[in-house]
Amino acid sequence: FRVVVLPGDGIGPEIMAVTEKIVAQVLAHSHQTILFEHQLFGGAAIDAVGEPFPVETQTAIDKSDAVLLGSVGGPKWDEAPERPEMGLLALRKKMGVFANVRPLQIFPAVRHLSPLREERLEGVDFVVVRELLGGLYFGTPKYFNETEGVDTLRYDKASIERIVHYAFNLARQRRKKLTSIDKANVLATSKLWRQTVEEIAVDYPDVTLEHLYVDAAAMHMIQAPARFDVIVTENMFGDILSDEASVLGGSLGLLPSSSHAEAGRPALYEPIHGSAPDIAGKDFANPIGMLLSAAMMLRQSFQLENEAKQIEIAVETALSEGVLTKDLGGTATTTIFANKITEIIE
Amino acid sequence: FRVVVLPGDGIGPEIMAVTEKIVAQVLAHSHQTILFEHQLFGGAAIDAVGEPFPVETQTAIDKSDAVLLGSVGGPKWDEAPERPEMGLLALRKKMGVFANVRPLQIFPAVRHLSPLREERLEGVDFVVVRELLGGLYFGTPKYFNETEGVDTLRYDKASIERIVHYAFNLARQRRKKLTSIDKANVLATSKLWRQTVEEIAVDYPDVTLEHLYVDAAAMHMIQAPARFDVIVTENMFGDILSDEASVLGGSLGLLPSSSHAEAGRPALYEPIHGSAPDIAGKDFANPIGMLLSAAMMLRQSFQLENEAKQIEIAVETALSEGVLTKDLGGTATTTIFANKITEIIE
Ligand SMILES: CC(C)[C@H](C(=O)O)[C@@H](O)C(=O)O
Ligand SMILES: CC(C)[C@H](C(=O)O)[C@@H](O)C(=O)O
Repeated sequence: FRVVVLPGDGIGPEIMAVTEKIVAQVLAHSHQTILFEHQLFGGAAIDAVGEPFPVETQTAIDKSDAVLLGSVGGPKWDEAPERPEMGLLALRKKMGVFANVRPLQIFPAVRHLSPLREERLEGVDFVVVRELLGGLYFGTPKYFNETEGVDTLRYDKASIERIVHYAFNLARQRRKKLTSIDKANVLATSKLWRQTVEEIAVDYPDVTLEHLYVDAAAMHMIQAPARFDVIVTENMFGDILSDEASVLGGSLGLLPSSSHAEAGRPALYEPIHGSAPDIAGKDFANPIGMLLSAAMMLRQSFQLENEAKQIEIAVETALSEGVLTKDLGGTATTTIFANKITEIIE
Repeated sequence: FRVVVLPGDGIGPEIMAVTEKIVAQVLAHSHQTILFEHQLFGGAAIDAVGEPFPVETQTAIDKSDAVLLGSVGGPKWDEAPERPEMGLLALRKKMGVFANVRPLQIFPAVRHLSPLREERLEGVDFVVVRELLGGLYFGTPKYFNETEGVDTLRYDKASIERIVHYAFNLARQRRKKLTSIDKANVLATSKLWRQTVEEIAVDYPDVTLEHLYVDAAAMHMIQAPARFDVIVTENMFGDILSDEASVLGGSLGLLPSSSHAEAGRPALYEPIHGSAPDIAGKDFANPIGMLLSAAMMLRQSFQLENEAKQIEIAVETALSEGVLTKDLGGTATTTIFANKITEIIE
């Protein structure tokens, strides 16, 4: 197995370092090998070679089985001609990862950190499936000048179809409920979206489908998050709603994500948090989002279910034993937390 | 004073009826007269004359000093050639109401209904200023066909300037903090937005300005809502974020809104909740959002500060005496609640 590792910026390198060690540890037990190949990406790549997504990194990814990404960006590159975030969009495009999957899990040990009241968290367990290659992110014309700015929200029917099939299939493996989110009372693309979802639903009679407007969804996400199982939505709505969802569990730092292309192509795994430049290099960062992203990789890209589970159980155990990083109200450093995980796995 | 009254659909007519009575009551005390002129709008207008925003309604609005709107829409018109919501967009456009203002207030008496924990609600008191006439709602091309859909997010600099000035001026009258929300790391329109905000900020040195990305804002709204004073954002982000904000106080049914055009033109007042067709006609609806919208009208369009305050205080008193409609966990009907308000004002 070949994994391209993109530590990126801010806290990316430090959480990646401990994650690699822990992945190596679980693999050693089971006599598997994964080749980790480090490549430049994001601000780090801008600093080194002047662009966020260098050709060498692209070539390495072409030959890889999966990509593990830390985090990118930071105020340092605010004035850069091409910002780190543009590298991220180019990476997604190049890899063809159209399905961004963000599972929301509430860890009992840190449940009290949630901004929501206890009773609202009962039974919360959902996944946001965000279309990642269409809409306002990539549509043209896209420009601004002295007098006006324009972005284009474009979706072709085929891209709606593939993400909707993806989401229906995921719902089938879960509680068989799919919520499609759009703004069909205002947007033409949403009308096409809703119509396409309806057509595809015929193939999945075992899955219960509901449609919600994005504004209503933003409310339900806080008022009754337990109502959701699988959510599917377009790129920008997915960006907003998945971030909204991500704080329900108490800390952004806990959550992993995976992004998938057509079968047979490498997938991308990354924590959902940002590069947190304010705490970078201080050994304060919570590596859980990164660790769980690596676990998702072991399971989904390499079918190493046991190894994935080992990491996940170790994380839950550490949390329930009160080994908590600063963002969770504890005092454990990144190193102390990672050592605890190593110890538990031993 | 001439007010055009658009009861609209669903619970609109019943909450409007009690609101008119209560407004008449506070005005009788102070020997003011307001002429209420009922006009057709929304689904009700589709049923009566075949279109949601008839020309007669438009003419009446041209001659009015303010417009009071109940709510529009419902599944009944899902298949209508022109939906009630299109009437709402046309109304906004026709009236030129570019600034939608939604104050969020937490009523102590129903604070326990909030999905957020007590400590997160401490000090929450903010206003969302949403640009209402630009962006994805109105931009063209806007179409969909068999193979693709397109919407256009367009902003001209002048429309950004006027909403940003509006928001800075509002911040000046409050705690002097303005949060501008965009997605400047991805959208060209957001880059223009952010640049324009920066330029205008020079005129308001007494107001503290911050920029947030819309995804981060969706998180902060739940994690730390007390950090906000005035929020300003474009149309679609404003739609999503103001709805997200609206549940913090425990019920949508409590909140009013106003929408403003250039000085001298009539403003539009409406509750932020929808038409709730499931409970329409049952005397269950909470009239508070409508009542407080009327109070905003008295204050902002007619400078009747005392009369506005009378309604607001009566609402708070009724709540704190436990007279609560169903959505607030109580048993009071619309009529009983309204009678209580009348009694308090007496
Ligand atoms: C950094 C930014 C371009 C990115 C996005 O908007 O997609 C981020 O918010 C995310 O959700 O991964
Ligand atoms: C009904 C709909 C068109 C409208 C909007 O999106 O503006 C509503 O959600 C609102 O916020 O007033």
